[in-house]
Amino acid sequence: MTLYKHVTIIGFGLIGSSVARALRENGLCETIVACDQDAACLKKVEELHLADRTEADPAKAVLGADLVMLATPVGTFGPLAKTIGPHLDYGATVTDVGSVKGSVVRALRPHMPPHVHVIPGHPVAGTEQSGPEAGFASLFFGRWCILTPPEDVDETALTTLKKMWEAFGSTVEIMTPEHHDLVLAITSHIPHLIAYNIVGTAHDLEGVTDSEVIKFSAGGFRDFTRIAASDPTMWRDVFLHNKEAVLEMLGRFTEDLTALQRAIRWGDGDKLFKLFSHTRAIRKQIIEAGQDDAAPDFGREHDIPKNNMSPKS
Amino acid sequence: MTLYKHVTIIGFGLIGSSVARALRENGLCETIVACDQDAACLKKVEELHLADRTEADPAKAVLGADLVMLATPVGTFGPLAKTIGPHLDYGATVTDVGSVKGSVVRALRPHMPPHVHVIPGHPVAGTEQSGPEAGFASLFFGRWCILTPPEDVDETALTTLKKMWEAFGSTVEIMTPEHHDLVLAITSHIPHLIAYNIVGTAHDLEGVTDSEVIKFSAGGFRDFTRIAASDPTMWRDVFLHNKEAVLEMLGRFTEDLTALQRAIRWGDGDKLFKLFSHTRAIRKQIIEAGQDDAAPDFGREHDIPKNNMSPKS
Repeated sequence: MTLYKHVTIIGFGLIGSSVARALRENGLCETIVACDQDAACLKKVEELHLADRTEADPAKAVLGADLVMLATPVGTFGPLAKTIGPHLDYGATVTDVGSVKGSVVRALRPHMPPHVHVIPGHPVAGTEQSGPEAGFASLFFGRWCILTPPEDVDETALTTLKKMWEAFGSTVEIMTPEHHDLVLAITSHIPHLIAYNIVGTAHDLEGVTDSEVIKFSAGGFRDFTRIAASDPTMWRDVFLHNKEAVLEMLGRFTEDLTALQRAIRWGDGDKLFKLFSHTRAIRKQIIEAGQDDAAPDFGREHDIPKNNMSPKS
Repeated sequence: MTLYKHVTIIGFGLIGSSVARALRENGLCETIVACDQDAACLKKVEELHLADRTEADPAKAVLGADLVMLATPVGTFGPLAKTIGPHLDYGATVTDVGSVKGSVVRALRPHMPPHVHVIPGHPVAGTEQSGPEAGFASLFFGRWCILTPPEDVDETALTTLKKMWEAFGSTVEIMTPEHHDLVLAITSHIPHLIAYNIVGTAHDLEGVTDSEVIKFSAGGFRDFTRIAASDPTMWRDVFLHNKEAVLEMLGRFTEDLTALQRAIRWGDGDKLFKLFSHTRAIRKQIIEAGQDDAAPDFGREHDIPKNNMSPKS
């Protein structure tokens, strides 16, 4: 099933390269053009044969494309839109994979010609790794992809884009950019922020060494270090571009944490027990919804290896 | 290598039952007596043949034991010590697997007769699951076990206990109870507290439904739900019994988070980028130290299953 003739992906990191692989694997387009400002990235794309053509200049890369996907950090979208705007084909769809949506709409609007269909998107999928070599075709399988089309969206353009994500194994959900930014603030942005924060706090302690933090990280800390290893540029831009929703959710998080702190200080075991019992149910529902593995400890390897090495100190 | 003749484990949940399995698998003792106040648990122990004998009464369970291990929530240790104190054998070692150590020392001290060797311990290992059926022998392999012996500890008793943990595949580290409580506050207790807290915050939002939180949890949130599914009683007791260190570390965490909040509010991208770049290095060191898997996304399954089901909604 060919959905597009020529897809141009601008920004060929984890997500961009995974989309290219998924397009190829499902035979959804004829030509893929990879565009990235990083020459080393494009060289890697050529070595791995991830695209039909590479092109450093976004203005040239979008020529003749019927789907243009922005997969760079969201802070680049304004200048990028200005660059590609005049070169977009009549009837082309312009989408993105950014983790925020309100600011993306605002960044694109002034530069998009009336003859293109702008349909912002966000596949809720990823790993903590970065770069074109980190991508894989099944990244979007079993995950949700959120699209935030304008009210007067072209239905055919929307349907085609939806079909693409569904072919990748995703379920598409339509919502407003504002609601997207609120939902993702709590399910993604605040989790990343507090993960980055606790790793920073642990590193800065004068009474506990980094070596101790690392050794005893299996007590829970290591779970946070995975998402705190995510791409720094991408995440800087997320926080700068979803400021209102992040600050709102952070306020609630801190308020709740202060209440817990008070319960600990005053020895209110009932309050602690009540919360700790509640939270189990949410994990159960996430597993039932197929959004995480049921295996304990994330299915981490617990077998004793044959060489029976003791841990490295 | 037999280290003990008769080991009594009081509290036969995830950790207690894993110790029993590891003792058996390595042939480290002759007899294991399982003690638990929950009759259903003891029934399960019998069904799974995890011990040589089960005993509901701790006073009877410890009779003749040369190693007594407390593996119940730490809040039970005071009354438990009082119950078993008069029945402990001459020269027996009394240890535990509690996640706090200062309060354990204080709870045991008044009730332990001078003819026993009290050596508190804490294997830094676990999963989010609970109960005797959740345990497994390799749980401690490749992990650290912290022992906090008194200064005048009997060296033979300490060496024997060390050998047991080493036979399980752990590396033993000796420290003071106070230092243990500080280190674990940051590597384990605060991570659990903020995980519980964010799951609670997400659940309480009026603008975002639970169903949305669950669907879009792959954006990062789901990573927190694992440890927020840990045993509520155990964790209530941890926070009540490591109050000082937890409040101290929580204060630092909140202070750092407030600085991040300010950076977001004022659009200080450099500050965010600097922290987000730093934290990657800690993840790398944890992986190099063998304390987490190098596989992206905790090695979660990303293959497309053969029946190609789309996600459940």
